[in-house]
Amino acid sequence: MHIYTDLAAELRELNPDEKGIEEQTEKKGNIEIKRIRILNDIAARRLGKKKGCYITIDAPELESRSPEVFSEVTDLLAKELGRMLSFDENSTVLIVGLGNRGVTPDSLGPQTVSEIHITRHIKKFMPEVLETPVASVCAIAPGVLGITGVETMDVVNGVVESVKPTAVIVIDALASRRAARISSTVQLSDAGISPGSGVGNTRSELSKESLGVPVIAIGVPLVVYASTIIGDAIGMIAGEPGIDCDEAKLRNLTESLVKKQSGDMIVTPKDIDTIVKDMASIISGGINLAIFGDNTESLAALLS
Amino acid sequence: MHIYTDLAAELRELNPDEKGIEEQTEKKGNIEIKRIRILNDIAARRLGKKKGCYITIDAPELESRSPEVFSEVTDLLAKELGRMLSFDENSTVLIVGLGNRGVTPDSLGPQTVSEIHITRHIKKFMPEVLETPVASVCAIAPGVLGITGVETMDVVNGVVESVKPTAVIVIDALASRRAARISSTVQLSDAGISPGSGVGNTRSELSKESLGVPVIAIGVPLVVYASTIIGDAIGMIAGEPGIDCDEAKLRNLTESLVKKQSGDMIVTPKDIDTIVKDMASIISGGINLAIFGDNTESLAALLS
Amino acid sequence: MHIYTDLAAELRELNPDEKGIEEQTEKKGNIEIKRIRILNDIAARRLGKKKGCYITIDAPELESRSPEVFSEVTDLLAKELGRMLSFDENSTVLIVGLGNRGVTPDSLGPQTVSEIHITRHIKKFMPEVLETPVASVCAIAPGVLGITGVETMDVVNGVVESVKPTAVIVIDALASRRAARISSTVQLSDAGISPGSGVGNTRSELSKESLGVPVIAIGVPLVVYASTIIGDAIGMIAGEPGIDCDEAKLRNLTESLVKKQSGDMIVTPKDIDTIVKDMASIISGGINLAIFGDNTESLAALLS
Amino acid sequence: MHIYTDLAAELRELNPDEKGIEEQTEKKGNIEIKRIRILNDIAARRLGKKKGCYITIDAPELESRSPEVFSEVTDLLAKELGRMLSFDENSTVLIVGLGNRGVTPDSLGPQTVSEIHITRHIKKFMPEVLETPVASVCAIAPGVLGITGVETMDVVNGVVESVKPTAVIVIDALASRRAARISSTVQLSDAGISPGSGVGNTRSELSKESLGVPVIAIGVPLVVYASTIIGDAIGMIAGEPGIDCDEAKLRNLTESLVKKQSGDMIVTPKDIDTIVKDMASIISGGINLAIFGDNTESLAALLS
Repeated sequence: MHIYTDLAAELRELNPDEKGIEEQTEKKGNIEIKRIRILNDIAARRLGKKKGCYITIDAPELESRSPEVFSEVTDLLAKELGRMLSFDENSTVLIVGLGNRGVTPDSLGPQTVSEIHITRHIKKFMPEVLETPVASVCAIAPGVLGITGVETMDVVNGVVESVKPTAVIVIDALASRRAARISSTVQLSDAGISPGSGVGNTRSELSKESLGVPVIAIGVPLVVYASTIIGDAIGMIAGEPGIDCDEAKLRNLTESLVKKQSGDMIVTPKDIDTIVKDMASIISGGINLAIFGDNTESLAALLS
Repeated sequence: MHIYTDLAAELRELNPDEKGIEEQTEKKGNIEIKRIRILNDIAARRLGKKKGCYITIDAPELESRSPEVFSEVTDLLAKELGRMLSFDENSTVLIVGLGNRGVTPDSLGPQTVSEIHITRHIKKFMPEVLETPVASVCAIAPGVLGITGVETMDVVNGVVESVKPTAVIVIDALASRRAARISSTVQLSDAGISPGSGVGNTRSELSKESLGVPVIAIGVPLVVYASTIIGDAIGMIAGEPGIDCDEAKLRNLTESLVKKQSGDMIVTPKDIDTIVKDMASIISGGINLAIFGDNTESLAALLS
Repeated sequence: MHIYTDLAAELRELNPDEKGIEEQTEKKGNIEIKRIRILNDIAARRLGKKKGCYITIDAPELESRSPEVFSEVTDLLAKELGRMLSFDENSTVLIVGLGNRGVTPDSLGPQTVSEIHITRHIKKFMPEVLETPVASVCAIAPGVLGITGVETMDVVNGVVESVKPTAVIVIDALASRRAARISSTVQLSDAGISPGSGVGNTRSELSKESLGVPVIAIGVPLVVYASTIIGDAIGMIAGEPGIDCDEAKLRNLTESLVKKQSGDMIVTPKDIDTIVKDMASIISGGINLAIFGDNTESLAALLS
Repeated sequence: MHIYTDLAAELRELNPDEKGIEEQTEKKGNIEIKRIRILNDIAARRLGKKKGCYITIDAPELESRSPEVFSEVTDLLAKELGRMLSFDENSTVLIVGLGNRGVTPDSLGPQTVSEIHITRHIKKFMPEVLETPVASVCAIAPGVLGITGVETMDVVNGVVESVKPTAVIVIDALASRRAARISSTVQLSDAGISPGSGVGNTRSELSKESLGVPVIAIGVPLVVYASTIIGDAIGMIAGEPGIDCDEAKLRNLTESLVKKQSGDMIVTPKDIDTIVKDMASIISGGINLAIFGDNTESLAALLS
């Protein structure tokens, strides 16, 4: 009923009885880590998410923007990423920042890659400046189809062929069902990602199947569709005792309300510019830490 | 019921039977110009808008972003502005761009003033470069209280005292009830404006009363509050035949839904960056044209 | 003597007697068009520029920033580009914007591609919206090696392989010898370009040889190296009558002065942000016009 | 001879024998602190700097961009500022960020004020959220005359009148003689500052005399004029043994070379965007620390 979300954890809530899904929740202080595994194609189709593992880090205290919480989530993200992929000095990692840098809530990917420690050109052209051997990391922000006229997959594929990475990490902004998630959730997944999703054809998918190496997607919910908010409001009403309503009628009403709100309408917090900047720091910090471990800080100084 | 709007025309729609309001509508091609005059304090209180004249220019075709429509609305705006204020070479006009330049939908004011033709320093320090005598125009973007710690009024007042303008034009982003307005409406008013409105104390109001010279406010709706969308959706349901509901219950439901969406949640189109840029061009273009008339183009070349 | 320039016309001035170079100058009002052809490898080595044709459009009046001069140069650029490449509805053109968007004078390429009319995805996914058949145009801004860790050539090559363009147009910021050029010159060339030039290995070169299709480079001088300014000053002194100086001594002096100015020091006008924006408009305007001709305006409206 | 600098320390080097100047140098590790006091009007006129105290912090290691050096300089700046002004919970401090935010090397002031901890509106409207009493701090970035048409002094004066600060701190970008200073020097002064200096009329000066409260100027050299580089080069040559030259001739040469480089030509490092960002962090960090001491961090968390 017009509820759209990219978060596996929210889709699970909407389909609590679905079989073929494993779920596990862990608490670390005020942070909740939920691990959802979609085991088979039936469950995948029902949830509308590919088979694979989805990890949601929920940290409502991020909203306070305290440096302690920021670094706690950064560390946690690094740890979870390190469990999905192992990195050492022989790794070559390609980071892909999806999205349109000219549209604030869509610029998470490009902003994140700009803070990644890039080492590939140094290892290749001036390895002598590195005190310790480290992984080779490179990063691109390929832009979006509507701006470049080139499918993201075509740009990424070309770079994968020449760089031959051992793993690819893709960063993208997500849509969630609840506005409250916008400043407080990170989702990791090993199931790949379709840029400009919804389109959903395999050709355009960035995944282990299409690229030939492990692909980890890291996403942050930064928008809620206006249609989701309306659908949610109406759904809530329909479910209330004391409100007697014809379900078909309600569905029609929603339909007409949603149509009035063009599909491009999104709900964001007013301080979305700041939120995107903060989340880009957390994601890039977590990736840097996962890949470079103890060398992260000395690399930061070297590369600055 | 949680419906918030800064547009007099939308408030009028919500209060169609209110007395003490004059209303007149004019059509120019696909553009509609609505003139609303709030005549007395009772009507003002009921509508939640100060006494005075409010002109709404509605141009749904702006959404097509065609240069023709842009220049048509620019011309219309110049004409309406010219009817509210008359400008000549003896005028001194202070343009005030309200809002936070770091928050996209709030940056209309600062972006607009950056495109105004500034002549005051030229008239003062090198008048010889001007071929024809023109009005003296200056502009400031005083920032917002939360960023500067200084009330907007305090900054503007100081500048008014030293510049001694014959008129002040204030530009601000507005909230509307309908998302469809976001790229297609401009409101002009002679009733003044309260930066960070809602606060509503007279001290902070930019108006003829507080500044001592005519103040024209030009605003563009760029956000809809998420709570307004929900309130609207629920209101629509309540009014439907075949839906039997307890009004008090509905109001409670709305209350709880709205609370879940923090007050800072706003609804914007995804391409808000582009829309703000376009509307800033139209507003600044209209102001330049109203003030400088036939000299606008030669001034543009001189000042560039 | 420490004079660095990317402009063939300036290199020619420094080597006026060099054989193997054809040169032709044309005047259109206040605009000068100089066509230089480097005919053989000896001349190429001496000048430090590859064999091929270099066209310099010199329009000192650009500095006035008058819209008329802007559109005159745009038209001229379109015409010269149209003489080097022919475009029709069967053309597929890849535009590559070189440079680092985070460094103002280096951001000409990325800024220019953002204003190109992109049609490839429309022709591919929704051709029905196009009234007239037009060329297929796509564009990328691959970033710089120091930021991405990936050679520009590797990104471009991958895109060329999947897009299979009939021509590639590359845009880059150039260094010139004279600061006065910064706001007034455009260079076109069919000889290819080496991103992060000076490096000069063939692998990284974007050219007909490396990409297999015609490559036109369009560049605008936006910086002068501080070392060039010093070298020029000292060279001028050495050549003056009444100044008796030991050439070796002068060379040493220059050496030590240049060393004090790190190689990264550049000379730019203070309003470089504005100049880059203006030149990006002119270059993108010229490219759009050359490729789309009479359809340029209707495409602009469609794509906005 | 066409050498322009805003740094008292560099002017002192150029006038080493000038009387009426006290000078003292202190070393802290690799950082040098030079304190220059211009004692009387004669010395002031000769140096082209107002009477008063000028402190230069020279930290060549800032170029390495290591976080340690950044925080060392931040601490030092806070200490020096604390020696010039004393702050406590009864202080009201107005921070003024001079310069044009649209011109990178000129945007230091606006960027710095955006990172200052603003407390005035909190003390005034919601003092209960503050755990400890702190100073009242507000900040404005008044823009430049060429953009606003309003003299900086007129904006600042109006705000001073309504805010009634106990001290004003002004931040501005400076010109220096040597490019090497650009990323490594901070100058503090109690002598006031003339925005758009050179103009030099008292009316426009921000100083204790004009504003009635102590005014501390903090500046960072971010540009070198191209004419200074040329003048320096030619001066060096003139002084060399083995180079026999007519001084008048040399002066003429310089004159003609400098004229060819328009006065607006400046020399900056290519990574000026990054340098401005870094220096804005250091300056704002030092100011925050000087004013808020141990409360700085908890305030940062509260205000974010």
